[in-house]
Amino acid sequence: MNESRHPEALQTRQADFAPVVRDLAGLLAALHASAAQRDRDGGHAAQEKQWIADAGLLTLAVPREFGGPGARWPEIYETIRKIARVDSALAHLLGFTCLQVVSVNVWGNPEQRARYLSGTVEGRWWWGNAVNPLDTRLVARATSDGGYRLDGQKGFCSGTRGSHMMTVSAQDAATGKAVFAVVPTTREGITVHEDWNPIGQRQTDSGSVSFVRVLVEPHEVLERADTPYASLRTLISQQVLTNLFVGIAQGALEEARAYVTQHGKPWITSDVDKATDDPYLIQRFGEMRLQAVSAEALAARAAYALEDAWQQGPAFDAETRAHVALATSEAKIVAHRAALDVSEKLFDACGARATHAPLALDRFWRNARVHTLHDPLDYRVRDVGRYALSGTLPEVSLYT
Amino acid sequence: MNESRHPEALQTRQADFAPVVRDLAGLLAALHASAAQRDRDGGHAAQEKQWIADAGLLTLAVPREFGGPGARWPEIYETIRKIARVDSALAHLLGFTCLQVVSVNVWGNPEQRARYLSGTVEGRWWWGNAVNPLDTRLVARATSDGGYRLDGQKGFCSGTRGSHMMTVSAQDAATGKAVFAVVPTTREGITVHEDWNPIGQRQTDSGSVSFVRVLVEPHEVLERADTPYASLRTLISQQVLTNLFVGIAQGALEEARAYVTQHGKPWITSDVDKATDDPYLIQRFGEMRLQAVSAEALAARAAYALEDAWQQGPAFDAETRAHVALATSEAKIVAHRAALDVSEKLFDACGARATHAPLALDRFWRNARVHTLHDPLDYRVRDVGRYALSGTLPEVSLYT
Amino acid sequence: MNESRHPEALQTRQADFAPVVRDLAGLLAALHASAAQRDRDGGHAAQEKQWIADAGLLTLAVPREFGGPGARWPEIYETIRKIARVDSALAHLLGFTCLQVVSVNVWGNPEQRARYLSGTVEGRWWWGNAVNPLDTRLVARATSDGGYRLDGQKGFCSGTRGSHMMTVSAQDAATGKAVFAVVPTTREGITVHEDWNPIGQRQTDSGSVSFVRVLVEPHEVLERADTPYASLRTLISQQVLTNLFVGIAQGALEEARAYVTQHGKPWITSDVDKATDDPYLIQRFGEMRLQAVSAEALAARAAYALEDAWQQGPAFDAETRAHVALATSEAKIVAHRAALDVSEKLFDACGARATHAPLALDRFWRNARVHTLHDPLDYRVRDVGRYALSGTLPEVSLYT
Amino acid sequence: MNESRHPEALQTRQADFAPVVRDLAGLLAALHASAAQRDRDGGHAAQEKQWIADAGLLTLAVPREFGGPGARWPEIYETIRKIARVDSALAHLLGFTCLQVVSVNVWGNPEQRARYLSGTVEGRWWWGNAVNPLDTRLVARATSDGGYRLDGQKGFCSGTRGSHMMTVSAQDAATGKAVFAVVPTTREGITVHEDWNPIGQRQTDSGSVSFVRVLVEPHEVLERADTPYASLRTLISQQVLTNLFVGIAQGALEEARAYVTQHGKPWITSDVDKATDDPYLIQRFGEMRLQAVSAEALAARAAYALEDAWQQGPAFDAETRAHVALATSEAKIVAHRAALDVSEKLFDACGARATHAPLALDRFWRNARVHTLHDPLDYRVRDVGRYALSGTLPEVSLYT
Repeated sequence: MNESRHPEALQTRQADFAPVVRDLAGLLAALHASAAQRDRDGGHAAQEKQWIADAGLLTLAVPREFGGPGARWPEIYETIRKIARVDSALAHLLGFTCLQVVSVNVWGNPEQRARYLSGTVEGRWWWGNAVNPLDTRLVARATSDGGYRLDGQKGFCSGTRGSHMMTVSAQDAATGKAVFAVVPTTREGITVHEDWNPIGQRQTDSGSVSFVRVLVEPHEVLERADTPYASLRTLISQQVLTNLFVGIAQGALEEARAYVTQHGKPWITSDVDKATDDPYLIQRFGEMRLQAVSAEALAARAAYALEDAWQQGPAFDAETRAHVALATSEAKIVAHRAALDVSEKLFDACGARATHAPLALDRFWRNARVHTLHDPLDYRVRDVGRYALSGTLPEVSLYT
Repeated sequence: MNESRHPEALQTRQADFAPVVRDLAGLLAALHASAAQRDRDGGHAAQEKQWIADAGLLTLAVPREFGGPGARWPEIYETIRKIARVDSALAHLLGFTCLQVVSVNVWGNPEQRARYLSGTVEGRWWWGNAVNPLDTRLVARATSDGGYRLDGQKGFCSGTRGSHMMTVSAQDAATGKAVFAVVPTTREGITVHEDWNPIGQRQTDSGSVSFVRVLVEPHEVLERADTPYASLRTLISQQVLTNLFVGIAQGALEEARAYVTQHGKPWITSDVDKATDDPYLIQRFGEMRLQAVSAEALAARAAYALEDAWQQGPAFDAETRAHVALATSEAKIVAHRAALDVSEKLFDACGARATHAPLALDRFWRNARVHTLHDPLDYRVRDVGRYALSGTLPEVSLYT
Repeated sequence: MNESRHPEALQTRQADFAPVVRDLAGLLAALHASAAQRDRDGGHAAQEKQWIADAGLLTLAVPREFGGPGARWPEIYETIRKIARVDSALAHLLGFTCLQVVSVNVWGNPEQRARYLSGTVEGRWWWGNAVNPLDTRLVARATSDGGYRLDGQKGFCSGTRGSHMMTVSAQDAATGKAVFAVVPTTREGITVHEDWNPIGQRQTDSGSVSFVRVLVEPHEVLERADTPYASLRTLISQQVLTNLFVGIAQGALEEARAYVTQHGKPWITSDVDKATDDPYLIQRFGEMRLQAVSAEALAARAAYALEDAWQQGPAFDAETRAHVALATSEAKIVAHRAALDVSEKLFDACGARATHAPLALDRFWRNARVHTLHDPLDYRVRDVGRYALSGTLPEVSLYT
Repeated sequence: MNESRHPEALQTRQADFAPVVRDLAGLLAALHASAAQRDRDGGHAAQEKQWIADAGLLTLAVPREFGGPGARWPEIYETIRKIARVDSALAHLLGFTCLQVVSVNVWGNPEQRARYLSGTVEGRWWWGNAVNPLDTRLVARATSDGGYRLDGQKGFCSGTRGSHMMTVSAQDAATGKAVFAVVPTTREGITVHEDWNPIGQRQTDSGSVSFVRVLVEPHEVLERADTPYASLRTLISQQVLTNLFVGIAQGALEEARAYVTQHGKPWITSDVDKATDDPYLIQRFGEMRLQAVSAEALAARAAYALEDAWQQGPAFDAETRAHVALATSEAKIVAHRAALDVSEKLFDACGARATHAPLALDRFWRNARVHTLHDPLDYRVRDVGRYALSGTLPEVSLYT
């Protein structure tokens, strides 16, 4: 069995992360204040997204050379996690903006990297996407100058509504190959539909997008590399989800704590004076915290593994990448379970009155439930099991 | 350790249960068809409650001597369970009508039993209640003739909205003792509020009720006995909840089966041709069923224990009653967990598209979550543990 | 979803079961007194097996017409369970004597049934077996008179050492078909080896048996029918195992209770005066009991399903048999888990001093662990899952 | 919720840890080869303890200034964990030698530290102890020169048999206060009894020790400080246990992998060609690994928290210490469960033949079971829960 890589193998220090974020605590409080209401309303959180932009968070994943903060992955994910504690939908949007920034970073040529990464800093861009790989309805037709025209649709386009820029993938009508590009969301022919209506994660702006003769300029086309380095992008995406789950677990625990502290009454046969002395309630909080810290520890372990590979730059090999993939799956599985369990047990801790609909305390479970279904847990466990039983490392796939 | 009582110790046979229920399958299909929509709407299900009345179900717990079907508890609970599979809110209403019928049966004098039980048969009465024991705001002032005037409020008055008759408990202003009575819901001074807005069980009509100088006639006052027999009422109530949980687990399993059979697609890395051949999906259904059958088996065991005591009539002793209480708690704990787990795992079985809000497939979990919080699971486990460790039988309490 | 069959559908009553068993309580106490020592020693429990024979238990499964007690399956299994609480190895031996009696009952012709079933009553026969279907080393060569000569070996021959009669299966050298027969264990050429040395279930006499030119008389050959009725034999065997697991869980719980009651001390930071008041210890006993009663309830449900089919006699169809198989698997899975969990948690309840080797309190876990591995749990869950997902009933196999 | 401290806050780097350990792989292989046999035999592993001494491991916790390797706690625990994978009893002995070294380090005056720590390096001393705080039978009587005479007994004196030096605590007959000292194990009047006979951890030399007029020289008496720094000793002890649990989980997983790879056969109804392709077996290994990596991640997190405090030296405050205690409890709980679960599931992975007693594959579960009972898991969960619910940090106690 391989030992965990020791985090201190990282070459840089946390002190390098300039304090670009303005008043994160204030932002979190503001998001929390309206979270229940916005869960009911669904739709687009224009105001709140502006606050996040104003706080300087959209550049988190931009390298220092393009004006970004030089944050390391453990720091980026910690920030996403903190937002997920109060609003996992907006945390998803931020995480996916980071992910599109990474896409440009790993697939863009020097000119594209300069344009889009500096642009993200200067323009405070939110990024959307239309790249869902399981939806193949969007077609690209090559133009004579090396560009394309796009026609068709994509579903589950998280973050696209209200974004400035978006990544898009389409199938080349002639070659059948995937075309990957960056376009401004406002480009003529793009329509973002307001058709996202799930039981949770209701403000992720994940509706469908339709394209009618949408122009892609030649310089907007990204060359999608298949190197282990470039394929870290998938793991970066999966770690975004992982840290949303961790944040949901931590947020549910915090809500439960706050509720019991404020409103908890000792049960009639408990023989204790206040709810916080109830031996069984204490035990429930213990178990909830154990799940949250386990998930956080594995998420941190995976983030350090990612950072370690990331800092090696484009040259590292497939095996290094596979070990990051393994750590990512291990963290995601544990975080998946923690998010669901803690958000369910929140109610056992708080009692019947906590089910009043306007409190929307079930949003943690609904958010977790929606977000834990992108790919089946069982197949992720299978990857871990194959490694444990036969030493087989996970292959690169759409989700791993 | 004591063995389970063998169910065949019961004296009567199932054949005695006259087929009073008209087209239960048709009723279930009709309730199922609108369940998702009514979960969203909340409020009062007037039409559906009429169907249940028309099907002859309101008399389930009325003894044969007053025109009821002579159903035994295992049969009554099986019927409630079947309805709970498609709509646990309306099943709750039916179960609580049975419970009020029992209240009259065990506490009423001969004249009251004749009036209210025969009335239930003849008038197809839905029964509500205003008896929540943790809410002590309703005050009774004795009138000179042996009746009372009621003033104040009660919360969580399940089933009262739209009911014909209701049971009510209030505190005697002079003596401090509890007064228990039956009144028509339409009596002057009673206002049923539409303030029930929980995250689940949204159509149980469980709002608050206010009373302004409400008259209680002397012949409407019930003498609340404290015999082991009369206190079976609490266990009958707890077994209603237990069977709602079992029904929710079974219903969630059935929805998952139907969804996967109709819409399931094999996962991209599964190497199977159809979802129903997926080895991990099969395993999930196996585990869901194991929880459902365990819960059902313990619910049946508890119902037989109850029936066994019930048939002994008013004379049995506290120990017999305590063994029924123990079996009830055991069943309720296992069913509580089954309802939550199966309704959560439904989504792992069905996948991401099943989170579309209009499907309302999260209603099973929300219904389970609201309904499993009447009293804390931990204290019920404590009762079981005390018996297992020290042989201490559970005492009569508000919930056990 | 199909409802549990109601146990009262059974036609006969418990009162028919004549009190053939002499002083079961005394027997149980005697077995318990030496169980820890015999677990260490392993080997053959000649004295204790004599006590069981003297108590009249060996005829449990013999029909009334041959002098047996007319016990129904729920009663037979309850008896096995009671013994398994104190000694699951000897309970296994008794259960497998019942199983060989059933083999003769379902496969024997009238003369064979009369000879062997009456013989069991008159001779107080312990039965062994050499029928392990996964071991194909034993060869039968037909003799001219319709009998056979047996040569070769069989492993895992539970109960054979010290038995009077045994069932044996071998492969016909000429036809490749299975030959099934009854022979006295003392027949010339049979050698029972003392090579059984497992981590648990150490006195099941399950060593290997070798055969050198062993004669099988023509009248000793059984015609192995493949009817649903005859294949109940496999389910009867699986329910023996199931009830051993239930008994182990119940026995471990009883040991824990006795130990804590006698030796338990309150933990230093517990703020309680005696161990039996410890809130967390109470909770552990609650959870242990919940597992034990769940397992027992499902075992009883399966036994009633079996009895129901059994009483229909040889004529019932494959679907009826498959429903018994399903109920058997459901019970076996839940009992498997209960046996392991309760026997592990016994130590959390009792504390460090309970690990003193001479107490052998780990024998419950070791017994459970050895006995739960005959066939993989996962494939039994698969059978349940296939039924839950696709309605596919389990097929007849070596273990289902 | 407080974030995990980031491990990189540590000031030193792994490269500082000189490679003092000679051929650890060879040592592990040698220990593994005889582990099953030594589990059966119990008693004292003189030969194997010599190998460990020869490998240079006894100085692990000795500071560089006294000739030790300057290892940090994460490194020390990783080494203990590696040994625990193959032999958790000997790993315990090594861990407890480290613990006594720490005792001298935190309680000794400069002269004592020089004498005993340098002595450990020069003399390759194994350390034992007679300090079990729950056993108060050992009495110290002051002599006129500042020393003591010891009379009485101590139980659970892990590592004392065959040790060179030992720590001892006794109750001052005059003052009632605890006296703490170091004495050579061979000192006149000390008798180490061979009365350790548990179900697991059979070679930890944890028998009782009796003292008859045993002389303690004045310079052997340690001044037991109560500073947060000195009380890290308890946490160091608890982290030894934690890492034994992690090692047991990892070792059981490794045994299961090796067994299935070598001996596994596909189940008869599995439709796979080899056991390592069985979808359910793969899943079991996935779940086992998830438990092992969760436990390891939390153990590493706790070790870094400890190291962080340790490097601050004697000056840090009680709150810093309490956060280390919290992380220690969190790790120990998760590791406790992982050790038991993985060592039980080993058998589900390997099948029935793996229960052959000479393989002693149950030693992982028995070792885990014995070692997880020093203090009740529930009270450790309570500490975590109190922090999660009320922010109360754990107090210094005998075990936390």
